[in-house]
Amino acid sequence: MEAIDFWYSIGSTYTYLTVMRLSGYAKNNGVIFNWRPFDVRTIMIEQKNIPFRNKPEKSAYMWRDIERRAAMYSLTASLPAPYPLEELALANQIALLGRQEGWVQEYTVETYRLWFVDGRPAGSEPNVSECLKRIGQDPVRVHEKVQSSEIVDALAAETVTARDMGVFGSPTFVVKEEVFWGDDRLDDAVSWCRHGRVMG
Amino acid sequence: MEAIDFWYSIGSTYTYLTVMRLSGYAKNNGVIFNWRPFDVRTIMIEQKNIPFRNKPEKSAYMWRDIERRAAMYSLTASLPAPYPLEELALANQIALLGRQEGWVQEYTVETYRLWFVDGRPAGSEPNVSECLKRIGQDPVRVHEKVQSSEIVDALAAETVTARDMGVFGSPTFVVKEEVFWGDDRLDDAVSWCRHGRVMG
Repeated sequence: MEAIDFWYSIGSTYTYLTVMRLSGYAKNNGVIFNWRPFDVRTIMIEQKNIPFRNKPEKSAYMWRDIERRAAMYSLTASLPAPYPLEELALANQIALLGRQEGWVQEYTVETYRLWFVDGRPAGSEPNVSECLKRIGQDPVRVHEKVQSSEIVDALAAETVTARDMGVFGSPTFVVKEEVFWGDDRLDDAVSWCRHGRVMG
Repeated sequence: MEAIDFWYSIGSTYTYLTVMRLSGYAKNNGVIFNWRPFDVRTIMIEQKNIPFRNKPEKSAYMWRDIERRAAMYSLTASLPAPYPLEELALANQIALLGRQEGWVQEYTVETYRLWFVDGRPAGSEPNVSECLKRIGQDPVRVHEKVQSSEIVDALAAETVTARDMGVFGSPTFVVKEEVFWGDDRLDDAVSWCRHGRVMG
């Protein structure tokens, strides 16, 4: 079975649900996911797609929905988490370096855990240094690397790739050029990959 | 098991998926739904929550997602359907009269069928007269009745009730004061009703 692209931005709230369960899901279902961080905020601003800002009713619902579904997945969460992230781009630049170096999953899971369980925003201190230490990466080295134009440009390029594939939100699963948006469309994406259609 | 309030507006696209499968779902799962039409547009304007207008990427995705899920439910659909509806309020005023008189489900299903299968917008002619005839209601009588201030005021009152319960979109399921938004949250609502939590 071919791999499914898992496009995501650290900074998205619903992405917490996916990040925390995806490696278990992959193992249980025999699916391979490519973890592909991008900058969803750039696309959302470009497309004037701002779902939660100045929308208190919809925001309150979003947190409640995440709380119920986190419980369904047996995930811990202290909600609402600090939102929005101030350092969304940096959080995802680090993830992209992790993708190049092979520690993207561990970093993403730990930074979300610190954000959603301990209330420390991803992309900012002390979240970044703490989670890098937990996964055995040197914060000083990583900080130097991610501020290089190479990583900044690479995240911008991934963001363009995502947008050109039809990605406009996070999390999004892309397989065989078919786009599935939302943690609640993970099963649909896997079904599409296996059978070429969505099955109930 | 207590009944689940099914709040909906004719005019919502995803609501098609719910309307066309709900009576079968209710029968198969032993659940009772109260069909409660309201005017989602009023709430969305009030809350500055406009998900699709001037958002071509998100709109294109919405239609594709509905197409895939309609196929999953074995529903026919000719997409994209005409959107948005010009006569959203009227379409739901008729539904509310149907609720008072006992034909709300039949009307809602037929008007969606004419809209999503035959491409004739709900709330406008020939959709309204055709679907009223199909369900055995006299279009002239219904037209007179729904233009009375009684029905217009009743729809406005239902809309306020929905908003005060935390409803901001369609379809929404409310049970034990818990709000579930989206066709894809139907199972969550039923699970909440039965077990007081969402189960996978």
